[in-house]
Amino acid sequence: MDLKKSIRSIKDFPKTGIMFRDITTLLQDPVALNHAADLLYDKVKDLGITKVVGIESRGFIFGGILASRLNAGFVLIRKPGKLPSKTYSESYTLEYGTDSIEMHVDAIKKGDKVLLHDDLLATGGTAAAAIKLIEKAGGEVVSIQFLIELTFIPGRSKLTGYNVDTLISYDDEN
Amino acid sequence: MDLKKSIRSIKDFPKTGIMFRDITTLLQDPVALNHAADLLYDKVKDLGITKVVGIESRGFIFGGILASRLNAGFVLIRKPGKLPSKTYSESYTLEYGTDSIEMHVDAIKKGDKVLLHDDLLATGGTAAAAIKLIEKAGGEVVSIQFLIELTFIPGRSKLTGYNVDTLISYDDEN
Repeated sequence: MDLKKSIRSIKDFPKTGIMFRDITTLLQDPVALNHAADLLYDKVKDLGITKVVGIESRGFIFGGILASRLNAGFVLIRKPGKLPSKTYSESYTLEYGTDSIEMHVDAIKKGDKVLLHDDLLATGGTAAAAIKLIEKAGGEVVSIQFLIELTFIPGRSKLTGYNVDTLISYDDEN
Repeated sequence: MDLKKSIRSIKDFPKTGIMFRDITTLLQDPVALNHAADLLYDKVKDLGITKVVGIESRGFIFGGILASRLNAGFVLIRKPGKLPSKTYSESYTLEYGTDSIEMHVDAIKKGDKVLLHDDLLATGGTAAAAIKLIEKAGGEVVSIQFLIELTFIPGRSKLTGYNVDTLISYDDEN
C-alpha cells in the first residue's frame, strides 16, 4: 500500500508558497490508518520502550496508538500554559521569532526508554527541543518517528545521532 | 482498578476556583492507559462504528486508539483555521462570548456510524456543536464517550437522546 496516495496536498496553506501535506485523508481511511500504525509499531516493538512522547496536537494521534500497542505510558508535549502541573520548558527558533514547548517534570523518569512521535519533520526545531525536554527529565530517546519528512528542508541534521524513521517523504514542494 | 486514583486534581487551574482534573497522570501509566482504552472499546465494539471523531487536542489520544482498535477511520474536529480543506463550522457559547469548531466536509459520509470522543464532559457545549457537525455531514452519532464527567454541571442534558458513556465522574469540586 502506497501511503503517499492517502495524503492530500493543498496549495498555499497556511500561506502562499506552502504546499501543505494533509494527513486527515490518511487518518479517515481505516486501512491506511492501521497500515501506518503497523509500520511504525513494527520498527520499535522490540526496543523496550517505556514511554511514548507525542507533540501537540497531531502527534497525539499515532503517539497514543503506539503507546497503547507498546504497553508504554503516553506523555504530552504541549504549548506553553496548557499543562497544569510543574513543567520543563524549551524554546526553539521559528522563521520569525521563537516559540516554546512544555512537558511535565514528572512525566519521564530516569531510565525511561522513549519513543518521540510527531506527524511531520520539517525544520526539526520542535523535535530538537522535545529531545532536550526528555533528556532533561532523565529519559533516553531510543527512537524518533514521523509520518512525513520534507527532505528538501535539512531538519534531519538537527537530529544527528538519533534513530529517525519516517514513512512518507517529499523531495520538493510539488 | 480504580481509574480515579490515576487522575491528578490541581487546585485553581487554569484560574482561581477551578479544580482541574489532570489526565496526564493516567496517560503516563501504561496499565491505566490500556485499562481505560479497554473499557471504552468494550462498550462500543459491537456497534458497527465506521468513524471515530476526536475533539482537539486531548480527544485525539483515546480517539486515535479507539479508531485503530475498531478498524474505523479517525476524524479531527479542530479550532478554526487549522484544517486545510473545506470545512463545516459550528459556534457554541462560553462563559463569556462564543467559540467555534470545524470539521472537513468530506470527513464523514452519509451512513457513517460515528463514535464521538473527548476527554471531558463539563458544560457539553463543545460536544453538542460536534454532534451538529457530524449530522450536517450525514453521519449518525451512535455513541459519545468521555473519560471524565463533571456531574455537578448539567452538561449531559445537552446530549439528551444520545448514548453517553463516561468512565470517571466527579460530583463536586473537591
